Amino acid sequence: MTVKIKTRDRILQASLKMFNEQGERNVSTNHIASQLGMSPGNLYYHFSNKAEIIFELFNGYQRAIADSVVLPEERLLTFKDTVRYFEMIFQGLWDYRFLHRDLEHLLNENDALREQYLTFSLITMSAGKDIIKGMNTSGIIKANTTEIDALLLNLWVILTSWSSFLQSIDVQNAMPGAMDPWALKRGIYQVICLIEPYGTDAARLDLPELKASYLGGVDTDPLLLFQLPSGVSK
Amino acid sequence: MTVKIKTRDRILQASLKMFNEQGERNVSTNHIASQLGMSPGNLYYHFSNKAEIIFELFNGYQRAIADSVVLPEERLLTFKDTVRYFEMIFQGLWDYRFLHRDLEHLLNENDALREQYLTFSLITMSAGKDIIKGMNTSGIIKANTTEIDALLLNLWVILTSWSSFLQSIDVQNAMPGAMDPWALKRGIYQVICLIEPYGTDAARLDLPELKASYLGGVDTDPLLLFQLPSGVSK
Repeated sequence: MTVKIKTRDRILQASLKMFNEQGERNVSTNHIASQLGMSPGNLYYHFSNKAEIIFELFNGYQRAIADSVVLPEERLLTFKDTVRYFEMIFQGLWDYRFLHRDLEHLLNENDALREQYLTFSLITMSAGKDIIKGMNTSGIIKANTTEIDALLLNLWVILTSWSSFLQSIDVQNAMPGAMDPWALKRGIYQVICLIEPYGTDAARLDLPELKASYLGGVDTDPLLLFQLPSGVSK
Repeated sequence: MTVKIKTRDRILQASLKMFNEQGERNVSTNHIASQLGMSPGNLYYHFSNKAEIIFELFNGYQRAIADSVVLPEERLLTFKDTVRYFEMIFQGLWDYRFLHRDLEHLLNENDALREQYLTFSLITMSAGKDIIKGMNTSGIIKANTTEIDALLLNLWVILTSWSSFLQSIDVQNAMPGAMDPWALKRGIYQVICLIEPYGTDAARLDLPELKASYLGGVDTDPLLLFQLPSGVSK
């Protein structure tokens, strides 16, 4: 007996892939149905419009992020724990990158999504704050309340803007998807660098190795990103 | 004799205002002509299509940014100098905020803009690097090469994403433009906080006052941004 993916899930998977690769605005429900070799009527049996598909995909994104930011209950946080959080968050952001690339438009067009996104933002920011406070309690970082607040907001902007930033470089170089393989890791490297100055001496001992693993031997100079250094290939 | 603004400049001014307020995709050349009470034919006499208007506006943006990032020739940089740079850059970004809100789309649609934008990115990143290195030379900050690179890239992402971030909060709260008056200042505050950990003890003496002036008495908690704190009004 073969495992058969439900039609509804096939529609969601294909939509996500097409939205991420082609941009949500360029993909209609007819395109999705055609891609799956199904009739538009069959698709409409599962989702009455594109907004419903987007809303359901957003729910998947929200679950992925919520599952990523759970504090360990019976021990203190380590720097690697927190990097692992950011890795999972980045992965979620990347898997659903169409959402943040054209967020204003999506929120303007979709009242249900707008409401849900506000709740999501508040929950995620709140969880992020708990993580940063937890790092402070564990003695990984040393930061006062205003520093934690500023760090949290800068983290939020970097995380939610990273895929748009990468895309803008790709588009400038007319090389779509050129940086996919190492782009996520570079994002995590940037986030580690954002937190590093607050790190305590003990916690910073592990950082050079950790940073090197995310940098993957690529030069740190951001100017090279815009010039797509040789040796960096898809 | 009254001063008369040239028609060409009137078109550019009206376009910029409409693009910023309504989003570039929602504004056609017919809308712009109508707003100015001129015939589409008169507008086409000056610009043969919307792409030309956008390209010309981008040139204005590029000049504004280029004029902002010039190092003082005969003295060392101070922290206030650098904050002043970021203030001018933020103002440029804000004045032309339609560009960064929908950058991918604009670059995809407009080959001339894409080429120009890449050059602009390289020049601006390079100038930004000179400023950060200058801060290091002046003893305002203490950072090694990899720290300077990471800081520069994080600055670029925060600066170019700030107006999209604000817009996403406004949209979530269904209150367009609600945060205009203090939103720029908060962005500058965030940038100061990004650089602060690298600041030397002497340079940091001025920072509490400087930060307070950009914060304007608003609570630092980012969660409140999403909830639009009472007392913050348009």
